Amino acid sequence: MSAESRLKELGLVLPEPFRSPTGRPYPFRWVRVRGNRAYVSGHLPMEPEGGIASALVGKVGAEVSAQQGAEAARMVALAMLGSLRRELGSLDRVTAWLRVLGMVNVAPGFRDLPQVVNGFSELILDVFGPEVGAHSRSAVGMAELPFGLPVEVEAEVEIAP
Amino acid sequence: MSAESRLKELGLVLPEPFRSPTGRPYPFRWVRVRGNRAYVSGHLPMEPEGGIASALVGKVGAEVSAQQGAEAARMVALAMLGSLRRELGSLDRVTAWLRVLGMVNVAPGFRDLPQVVNGFSELILDVFGPEVGAHSRSAVGMAELPFGLPVEVEAEVEIAP
Amino acid sequence: MSAESRLKELGLVLPEPFRSPTGRPYPFRWVRVRGNRAYVSGHLPMEPEGGIASALVGKVGAEVSAQQGAEAARMVALAMLGSLRRELGSLDRVTAWLRVLGMVNVAPGFRDLPQVVNGFSELILDVFGPEVGAHSRSAVGMAELPFGLPVEVEAEVEIAP
Repeated sequence: MSAESRLKELGLVLPEPFRSPTGRPYPFRWVRVRGNRAYVSGHLPMEPEGGIASALVGKVGAEVSAQQGAEAARMVALAMLGSLRRELGSLDRVTAWLRVLGMVNVAPGFRDLPQVVNGFSELILDVFGPEVGAHSRSAVGMAELPFGLPVEVEAEVEIAP
Repeated sequence: MSAESRLKELGLVLPEPFRSPTGRPYPFRWVRVRGNRAYVSGHLPMEPEGGIASALVGKVGAEVSAQQGAEAARMVALAMLGSLRRELGSLDRVTAWLRVLGMVNVAPGFRDLPQVVNGFSELILDVFGPEVGAHSRSAVGMAELPFGLPVEVEAEVEIAP
Repeated sequence: MSAESRLKELGLVLPEPFRSPTGRPYPFRWVRVRGNRAYVSGHLPMEPEGGIASALVGKVGAEVSAQQGAEAARMVALAMLGSLRRELGSLDRVTAWLRVLGMVNVAPGFRDLPQVVNGFSELILDVFGPEVGAHSRSAVGMAELPFGLPVEVEAEVEIAP
């Protein structure tokens, strides 16, 4: 089943384009396409209308639980799929996930970074399947992330030109 | 206008090769070229003569303001352009910026990482223009960076072989 | 001399596959191969039998010294070579190291991140030689890493298809 069909089957809705909370435009692209590669900027958890998921602000291990962190990571995946679809026209142009860098805004002493980033990886595998969706990954703890959000993920994917 | 011409027009001077403050040689390359890709190591803000920008040591949000952090990020871009020119012969061989990872040495509670890394992105766009200079980006907060400097950026660019 | 021959000459033994301390399977690949690229997930220091190097748990600059951190980084390199050999059949299929992201679990105030990650870089250069083993690199300080281990490294290499 194609990624677009599977997304429909799961009833998942991708968020609107990011609306900067500061009003400043950003001097980078959410997705940079070149040849058969799409380089995907660090994405944050977003509300369906394109705002940041402000209810989730906080550090994992303090204000945000590991389970809430994983849910935030799943929202990051949806935001990223929204950007990829806008850039590529269809998610079915993604032929392989390659690299995922999962960055967790972490409170001192919280070590289960993989559990948090699993929220991202599992959605990607669910939508793209075990072949296209397979990816390398790092799951690491950051000192701070933009807007105090709990997770940011960047990625690289292979695409059909 | 070519990147080299634009650099001249802006009157920008690129710093000399990095001089290790410890005197130790480094077991890595500042730029690793392979086929049509140049992988660029994490660069730090440098003085024109090749030393680290020791006047800028500190964490953004504490000793270093957001604006000083953005200026440091701009200096990182100049250092990186110096390395790229030495490796490639000319910056005009860069055909596309692809990926930028902007890492900020951050004090607890400082969240405006994008503002800091904008100092890097804006210089790249100014020199290479909106097509070649477009890049994906993450802007994240680190616990520590080498020499206590406030910003480190790594990147990947496409080059003409 | 080939990487496999050099490894034998050095008497180095690569660790067994990673055994998850939590018993959970991981929703990612240790090495993701596509065309002439292998994307290598963040690896941790491991014991020969495939467990995490639990004797090394701690932050560099506090429980773990810089020298122990460099030794941990060397163990990360061995773990990564184990994953690459399992995926590729032979390390001799690696034609070029490209990018290394060295992440150090750091105590406040510890700044000599390069010294720690040198433990990784030097082993790679020793096994693959100065041409194939050359790589770009960043060495940065993280707030936390999985299992409280002191170093995690991710990488990208070029391979013969």
